[in-house]
Amino acid sequence: MTELSPTLTLACDLIARNSTTPDDAGCQQLMGERLSACGFKLESMRFGEVDNLWARRGTEGPVLCFAGHTDVVPTGPIERWDNPPFSPVVRDGMLHGRGAADMKGSLAAMIVAVERFIADAPDHKGSIAFLITSDEEGPATEGTVKVVETLVERGEKVDWCIVGEPSSTELVGDVVKNGRRGSLNARLTIKGKQGHVAYPHLARNPIHLAAPALAALAAENWDAGNAFFPPTSFQVSNINAGTGATNVVPGELVALINFRFSTESTAEGLQQRVRDLLDQHGLDYELDWTLSGLPFLTEPGALLDGVSAAIRKVTGRETQPSTTGGTSDGRFIATMGTQVVELGPINATIHQLNEHVSANDLDTLTEIYQATMEQLLT
Amino acid sequence: MTELSPTLTLACDLIARNSTTPDDAGCQQLMGERLSACGFKLESMRFGEVDNLWARRGTEGPVLCFAGHTDVVPTGPIERWDNPPFSPVVRDGMLHGRGAADMKGSLAAMIVAVERFIADAPDHKGSIAFLITSDEEGPATEGTVKVVETLVERGEKVDWCIVGEPSSTELVGDVVKNGRRGSLNARLTIKGKQGHVAYPHLARNPIHLAAPALAALAAENWDAGNAFFPPTSFQVSNINAGTGATNVVPGELVALINFRFSTESTAEGLQQRVRDLLDQHGLDYELDWTLSGLPFLTEPGALLDGVSAAIRKVTGRETQPSTTGGTSDGRFIATMGTQVVELGPINATIHQLNEHVSANDLDTLTEIYQATMEQLLT
Ligand SMILES: [Zn+2]
Ligand SMILES: [Zn+2]
Repeated sequence: MTELSPTLTLACDLIARNSTTPDDAGCQQLMGERLSACGFKLESMRFGEVDNLWARRGTEGPVLCFAGHTDVVPTGPIERWDNPPFSPVVRDGMLHGRGAADMKGSLAAMIVAVERFIADAPDHKGSIAFLITSDEEGPATEGTVKVVETLVERGEKVDWCIVGEPSSTELVGDVVKNGRRGSLNARLTIKGKQGHVAYPHLARNPIHLAAPALAALAAENWDAGNAFFPPTSFQVSNINAGTGATNVVPGELVALINFRFSTESTAEGLQQRVRDLLDQHGLDYELDWTLSGLPFLTEPGALLDGVSAAIRKVTGRETQPSTTGGTSDGRFIATMGTQVVELGPINATIHQLNEHVSANDLDTLTEIYQATMEQLLT
Repeated sequence: MTELSPTLTLACDLIARNSTTPDDAGCQQLMGERLSACGFKLESMRFGEVDNLWARRGTEGPVLCFAGHTDVVPTGPIERWDNPPFSPVVRDGMLHGRGAADMKGSLAAMIVAVERFIADAPDHKGSIAFLITSDEEGPATEGTVKVVETLVERGEKVDWCIVGEPSSTELVGDVVKNGRRGSLNARLTIKGKQGHVAYPHLARNPIHLAAPALAALAAENWDAGNAFFPPTSFQVSNINAGTGATNVVPGELVALINFRFSTESTAEGLQQRVRDLLDQHGLDYELDWTLSGLPFLTEPGALLDGVSAAIRKVTGRETQPSTTGGTSDGRFIATMGTQVVELGPINATIHQLNEHVSANDLDTLTEIYQATMEQLLT
């Protein structure tokens, strides 16, 4: 058996720790030791039951921050894994284990890339930082958002941030995320009047009242998106009405709705349009809104140029900026005015049974991260 | 305290027996003793855990049958009754107790009316019968439907049937039911494709797919009814989709639907129209149908004329035939080709806390039942 590369060796050490959200299981200590050894100043920030690590090398700007999470999603039925999820193995060129792609592979690549860069350029420009949480896959309330609050309070500035989320689709580096849509949730209650199905004139059926309005909401064009964002999308994730009894007209209907919205729309604007449409249908309703995240966008500039140049240099590929997909902790970091890009391995198997990632890709990713530092800090 | 009338005395004896479905609690034995004493031949028919009584006086036709149920619906919270539900009392002219209106009052009125009629006309024409069950308020699978099967098997014919269900609305006898709508249920499953709300193009949201079709079903005019029936009505009683997770597009939607249908529509016709409409919307769906009851109608004829004349004679009122409201055991009896009419006291408090009925109305009802026998059997 060939010896594993430094990145794969570290990735295996991290995967072997069962750090299901919100447990860090010692991953941050392992990373901290490596960073400390090459001149980083460490700060553990524990909020609630969540371990977070802030580490920085240098006191000057600009600050390039690597960000990510040590926590992983639950394994699901362990007996359905071909290989135990916390016993990492490289087989047929693939590293197998929970977190291999999301995102312990990226964390290992970041550490090794930084070690190599500092060995080559100990007197680099600016500062390098790490912002690591163990609460990304969970409620995400005691992790990155709290570290960012702390940095803002003390006026610590981050210019550029690379989040190690698995952004690639077919080939490593083919896609980077330079923004994310906003996410807006609501609980919609449509009120009717309970009654007996045999006396429909004495009842008002909220299912019948809701159907045309839901059809209109589902058919609405909220915006056309723009050069950076796909159009805003609307989805009803849950709908419930009725007691189970087949002879009762229910008194109300509850629907959970979600918007993933582009920078062409605002949360306030979408809320108003939903209310207008429900009013047009003459409905008696309540809306309880939760704004899960504002959209953010990193327009072409130093970070996106640096990352693109590094990918081109290492792989020969022109990367594709994209803002599709789910939310990430990038939304919290972007609130500091930081340019944020997500760059990591192929995301095909994340959150699934038998999660795996190409071993070569992690070594390539290490080179890309190192080349990005060379672009931005030398 | 004035002495209670024979009808009220018997009604109290019946109400004092806690005959919550399917328990008969001795009601049929009490009724049977009274009927036996005036020449009825009794047959107890027990099916499953349900007591049924078939009693007949005479061997000739025509057969006039009184039908009803001794079982009552549950009391609900007993502490919320002003008077204990199984301790009947007459207060301010009202008989209070569970079953006072639905339908122990009617049963008592039938027995007393028959006793008086036979005393006056011991050699009446044809036959008088009673078909009594203790399974009307429950699943209704071991009661009237089984007795009817038995009668059909042995070729025993029933020409006319008066069901004692509380048909009156404002004044006793103001309304009789001369039919009931059919009831047709279905479980409708609309299939989509599960996915993540952030990737709507990879999912097919069954809530979005269903909404326009449900709106169309709710807006459809199924028929206009006719001289005897209100228009067929459609109601969705339950709708469910989603796992509770706000970021998942569900894989399917389930709706429970119900038709109350007139004789202008058939079950098969409604089923076909639902399928056609769902097909027009391009849906992938499953429908699981349950026919709870066919519509029945007793057109003007000997029974309806006799009942109307009796009501006119006793109260001076012109009764109003109606087919509105829920189903009753009349639907099973009508399958024998029997003319069926429902005639009983005011239904304002049935199935509620503090169920009660006018004491005078029960005495009036006794007279109406007796006058009906005089119309039809002398
Ligand atoms: Zn992740
Ligand atoms: Zn009843």
